Amino acid sequence: MQRKHNNVEPIYPFTAWDVIEREFRAENNYRNETIFALGNGTIGMRGTLEEGFNGPGCEGTYLNGFYEREVIRYPEPAYGYAEHSQTLLNVTNAKIIQFYVEDELFDMTQGRVSEYERALRLKTGILERSLRWRSPAGREVQIDIERLVSLPYRHVAAIRYSVMPLNFDGSIRFVSKLDGDVRNLSASNDPRTGSRFEGRVLSVESRSAEGSFAMITQRTQHTRFLLACGMDHTFISGETRTLESRADDLSTSVVYTVAAKAGQPITLDKFICYLTSRDVPESSVQDEAKNILGNAKTVGFEVLRDEQAKYLTKFWDHADITIEGDDALQQGLRVNMFHLLQSVGRDSKTSIAAKGVTGEGYEGHYFWDTEMYVVPFFLHTSPEIARKLLEYRYRILDKARERARQMAHPRGALYAWRTIDGEECSTYYPAGTAQYHINADIAFAIKRYVEATGDESFLVQGGAEILFETARLWADLGSYIPNKGGKFCINGVTGPDEYTAVVDNNAYTNLMAQINMRYAAEIAKWLQANNSDVYQEVAKRIGLASSEIESWNKAADNMYLPYDERLQIYAQDDSFLNKAPWDFANTPPENYPLLIHYHPLVIYRHQVCKQADFVLALFLLSERFSMEEKKRNYDFYEPLTTHDSSLSSCVFSIVASEIGYHDKAYDYFMETSRMDLDDSHRNVKDGVHIANMAGTWMSMIYGFAGMRVQSENGAPLLAFHPHLPEKWNGYAFNMVFRGRLVRVAVNRDHVTYALLEGEELAIAHNGERLTLRKNQPLIL
Amino acid sequence: MQRKHNNVEPIYPFTAWDVIEREFRAENNYRNETIFALGNGTIGMRGTLEEGFNGPGCEGTYLNGFYEREVIRYPEPAYGYAEHSQTLLNVTNAKIIQFYVEDELFDMTQGRVSEYERALRLKTGILERSLRWRSPAGREVQIDIERLVSLPYRHVAAIRYSVMPLNFDGSIRFVSKLDGDVRNLSASNDPRTGSRFEGRVLSVESRSAEGSFAMITQRTQHTRFLLACGMDHTFISGETRTLESRADDLSTSVVYTVAAKAGQPITLDKFICYLTSRDVPESSVQDEAKNILGNAKTVGFEVLRDEQAKYLTKFWDHADITIEGDDALQQGLRVNMFHLLQSVGRDSKTSIAAKGVTGEGYEGHYFWDTEMYVVPFFLHTSPEIARKLLEYRYRILDKARERARQMAHPRGALYAWRTIDGEECSTYYPAGTAQYHINADIAFAIKRYVEATGDESFLVQGGAEILFETARLWADLGSYIPNKGGKFCINGVTGPDEYTAVVDNNAYTNLMAQINMRYAAEIAKWLQANNSDVYQEVAKRIGLASSEIESWNKAADNMYLPYDERLQIYAQDDSFLNKAPWDFANTPPENYPLLIHYHPLVIYRHQVCKQADFVLALFLLSERFSMEEKKRNYDFYEPLTTHDSSLSSCVFSIVASEIGYHDKAYDYFMETSRMDLDDSHRNVKDGVHIANMAGTWMSMIYGFAGMRVQSENGAPLLAFHPHLPEKWNGYAFNMVFRGRLVRVAVNRDHVTYALLEGEELAIAHNGERLTLRKNQPLIL
Repeated sequence: MQRKHNNVEPIYPFTAWDVIEREFRAENNYRNETIFALGNGTIGMRGTLEEGFNGPGCEGTYLNGFYEREVIRYPEPAYGYAEHSQTLLNVTNAKIIQFYVEDELFDMTQGRVSEYERALRLKTGILERSLRWRSPAGREVQIDIERLVSLPYRHVAAIRYSVMPLNFDGSIRFVSKLDGDVRNLSASNDPRTGSRFEGRVLSVESRSAEGSFAMITQRTQHTRFLLACGMDHTFISGETRTLESRADDLSTSVVYTVAAKAGQPITLDKFICYLTSRDVPESSVQDEAKNILGNAKTVGFEVLRDEQAKYLTKFWDHADITIEGDDALQQGLRVNMFHLLQSVGRDSKTSIAAKGVTGEGYEGHYFWDTEMYVVPFFLHTSPEIARKLLEYRYRILDKARERARQMAHPRGALYAWRTIDGEECSTYYPAGTAQYHINADIAFAIKRYVEATGDESFLVQGGAEILFETARLWADLGSYIPNKGGKFCINGVTGPDEYTAVVDNNAYTNLMAQINMRYAAEIAKWLQANNSDVYQEVAKRIGLASSEIESWNKAADNMYLPYDERLQIYAQDDSFLNKAPWDFANTPPENYPLLIHYHPLVIYRHQVCKQADFVLALFLLSERFSMEEKKRNYDFYEPLTTHDSSLSSCVFSIVASEIGYHDKAYDYFMETSRMDLDDSHRNVKDGVHIANMAGTWMSMIYGFAGMRVQSENGAPLLAFHPHLPEKWNGYAFNMVFRGRLVRVAVNRDHVTYALLEGEELAIAHNGERLTLRKNQPLIL
Repeated sequence: MQRKHNNVEPIYPFTAWDVIEREFRAENNYRNETIFALGNGTIGMRGTLEEGFNGPGCEGTYLNGFYEREVIRYPEPAYGYAEHSQTLLNVTNAKIIQFYVEDELFDMTQGRVSEYERALRLKTGILERSLRWRSPAGREVQIDIERLVSLPYRHVAAIRYSVMPLNFDGSIRFVSKLDGDVRNLSASNDPRTGSRFEGRVLSVESRSAEGSFAMITQRTQHTRFLLACGMDHTFISGETRTLESRADDLSTSVVYTVAAKAGQPITLDKFICYLTSRDVPESSVQDEAKNILGNAKTVGFEVLRDEQAKYLTKFWDHADITIEGDDALQQGLRVNMFHLLQSVGRDSKTSIAAKGVTGEGYEGHYFWDTEMYVVPFFLHTSPEIARKLLEYRYRILDKARERARQMAHPRGALYAWRTIDGEECSTYYPAGTAQYHINADIAFAIKRYVEATGDESFLVQGGAEILFETARLWADLGSYIPNKGGKFCINGVTGPDEYTAVVDNNAYTNLMAQINMRYAAEIAKWLQANNSDVYQEVAKRIGLASSEIESWNKAADNMYLPYDERLQIYAQDDSFLNKAPWDFANTPPENYPLLIHYHPLVIYRHQVCKQADFVLALFLLSERFSMEEKKRNYDFYEPLTTHDSSLSSCVFSIVASEIGYHDKAYDYFMETSRMDLDDSHRNVKDGVHIANMAGTWMSMIYGFAGMRVQSENGAPLLAFHPHLPEKWNGYAFNMVFRGRLVRVAVNRDHVTYALLEGEELAIAHNGERLTLRKNQPLIL
């Protein structure tokens, strides 16, 4: 018996290491395509059926960072608007395996399906489907399908397709296909989904098929990217068989026909490779794809499967969180972490899209979500991935410099609010380009990265340059305003809260810019002292004067912060406290999210927040505020926040934990951890909510465990303030910090810290400084 | 010899009552099409050549308010955005008269043109063209063309085309055409011009031709408007002639061929009628058009010409301004007034577009320009036209109510920022829908109208209802804000200055809203007392509670105004004084207008104004501010204003006059009066600048003559503070006020006031109260 969780009827049983579906229903297909999506940060395959499905759904395969560009048309254009879209493309469909029993085509909606189970295995990284099918003519087969998108081999996917006749001997035919006739979803009136494309934008350049091998190359129209998609097969059957291969206009197929016998399984292993001119030089795309494919076929499906499991074992060793006493949350946590891993780019050319590689929502763009939500997770589970994400920002630094010039800043860099390749793609600047805070968010992630890893090499290899260029931007953007006591003010920006736009002195932005400038100045001094050659080279190349570094500290020291003496709170911005409160009492539930029921002006002129804004600063800059300040500000902002953004609840959960609002912390956590599994926002079909998934991890580690990286005499100190929610018996997690693997376990009676790997480490528990040594767990 | 004026090389000689061109040059054609445009508020015909022209230009004919609607596509749509465009259409071209000498087609660019003159006659309302043409084969003809768009008959235009062979006898053929193959200019990247249409949107429904008569009907695709364009002809020739008429797919023609003799003129009179289903019921459009055309032909060209002159004589009697000592300004003033008359809708279904009926700029939309710039001119020259403009606002009040609901206001009306038929068409809300002040501008125009005419019937017939509905909107929009001392604040709007957007407490808006609410309350009481039936009917129909009327006064009494104690000035809005000044010193001249060289965010975050904002309030609410206040505020805002909007200079001129900055007043006036004649903004090709044209009149009357309608014990008092600019010898003007025609003449020695028509009138001269009686001019 399945109980309800969070008042939502559960969709999948609460299993610890899987997502399982036991009945196939057409109306759930679209949603399940997202939940059962597989990916490896490069390739993303929605959980569509190999044989296809004639019903609602989106037959999507995506390659992280593989996009088409188009000129954006505005009804009223203006100078400096984003000029081109960048849209993640739905690419060659390589999942297709149709099979025929005699002349009957297998189809989930024809004949009769029994003993059906589909399972996403979080430990092994395999999507399994098994069922018995009785064809309309009465032939019965047992079907077992395994699919993987290889985590260690990021251009490879594979499918094992096994069929066993149960009540007949006869011909069985497999048609394995690469289909180049693919297109994106078309634009709807919901700004969050859909593309501007009309029809197919990926043209097919070549098709080949030879024996068990076939390949299609496709090209984008404007970006001129080349994509090669290849497949090869291993066919395991005791019987004689025939093989034919075909290529037509837009697709290519390999067909196996076999005389099958009742009770004897037949297995087709399909190996798939995607490689593009974004990965390797265009001239070698095809050859390299063939090599990769050949290697995959040579090692075989079982080795790929083993290596997949090994990769995940290591991942879970560093990342797993256990919750005693709530299977539903346990499952939610793991699914979220699994999808994060599946979605994250690891090649420093790509980042992690708002929907990962599971759907087309937000056009596959990267936002600040990466640095503020996703980086912390990887920083403390797979820090090498966190570094890749930051390297991506260095890779697009030139584009950010260009953008700064377009925005009238003679120096510095301004990162695009949303982009794939670095160019600004936000078409609504008040909730786009105006969110200058992305600059400081990136700088903050670098600071966190260096603190949590000790990896100073990243600073030398680009990190410092990002810090300098972002700091310069703030110095140029802000001004010392006489009317504000000569303080350094940052006007005309939008903070994280998108229900307030283009304001002066957004407190979050000013605080983060302050840190950005201070840290840039600190790193400049450090680099001068420790890598003076590198400093000289960078300073010369970007024309950095030492007076600028002083100007950063001066601006930081004089940073204006809007503070209300009467309420003793920080105002979200200069104007926030002068607005009328939103009339929540007369806002019917169906009018949420507000942004699709009210004109922006109506929202903007009221005290209402879409998401954590100053409350996010309370979390990030925890050491800066007293507990009383945190409470007062939280108390003020919480009732004004709709959490219409999926980036919000986790932050409120974390701060609620910190200030001892444990019930609230728990309630917010409940909203985040199973958002996609329960489809509580009713749009999981468009893809998973990556930031929220990362937020679940943050709510656990920063929230319930109260983890912070504090500063102790300038050195980072790992600190905890653990709390056990009442409804649980305990929880435990592993995390990585400065080369150590630390385990924290919390139950009713004790908190246990253990050092699993690495040298001894100072930690703080509820403010008390302790030393953690290997094989000497601290039980407190 | 022509001298320079305003440092601009003059284009046309400085003639008092004409605009004359003495050389035809292809590169000036596009610009001249606007300057030589004819119109009557319904029909607008650009000054294109009857025979056509194969070069840069826009063969445009427009019918005020005749538009096509399309769905607006946004790259990122949001709730409440304007949904449909409304675009003034280029309609059936009826100007075409081609003529052939034997087989040689007349063309200004072929053969040789001599004794060329084109003249727009401001006294008679005729566009004349005369020239001698020597064909490539050496045949010479004298050509004289007169064109009129009838001011008294607003569906009629006419052309008299006279040709006299000079050195040959031979065949002459006229092809007079209606061409339905018309389309609008296509969109460019300049948001101010161009449409979204692809190709032709006016389909031809029928064509007929019979004898000298022909007609085309065309239909718009989405609005489904029907347009009938007919022509008929009178041909005056002593010789035998043949007549044929033809209709093909998209056009219809009447062809006259005549055996002409040297020295004997041949004259073709062409009568044109445009009528649409916006004017009369669709079923009677064609018949009614035929009737109108028949009447025009019956009365004949000469009568039409006489009546045109009579109409203008009356107009100039009420409107003319003379300047002694500056022919260039004299000409500029008259041309501007003439184009205002030509462009203004007089049927209460239409208003006056930003480009009149002379071009496609701004899609033929009506803005606040009408009420704040154009209405004053008509109010004091042709008050019946001012009333028509206000009636138009009553006609679209329902649309404004709908818009208020979309913008989350449960009651009241919100006028569209730009529209033809009442629906909001602004696609960039920060400089569109956010300009709520249009509501108060309309209310203010009603107040001015009633004061200047004494016509209370308009209040009863709709005016009061507009006042109530606009007042309600303000009451709902604003809030009493504790943080602002409990004052009534209006947040999240844009004032007149479009270089500052979506701000709190724009001083202009708050002041005008205050007047709107106060006047609405006053008129409510007046209506209750004087027309209680009407009041009851309106109150019931719109659900107006008497408590609401109190709430208007309360809000007005508590209206917040941002005032800076240190600078002793009113802040343009809550945030304006907290911004950094624009760096004018480092802004190169080619970077103006700023809006096409800087991203909106860059502009918005600086102290820089596109146009008069608070300075406009200084003018409109002259009685509210002391002279010192006016000076201080003017001195503050003037250096921050770029006048990138053509609505700006005239207002600065008026206020400069008032505060005794006479040189500045003169300089600003110079920028306005000949803007289009000198093409100083380099875009007169796209149409005239209507608001600026009206601003010229305002600068004279409100500025140099210091005219204000003051309040004396609640009664309106016509007051003057005349000043004579140093460079002039004198100026004089007529104006209408409460049924009187008043003449004011200013020279070095005297100011003379004369009452030309009407009963005795109290006036004030430099603060002194005087009584003006007929035949008793006051010489002061």
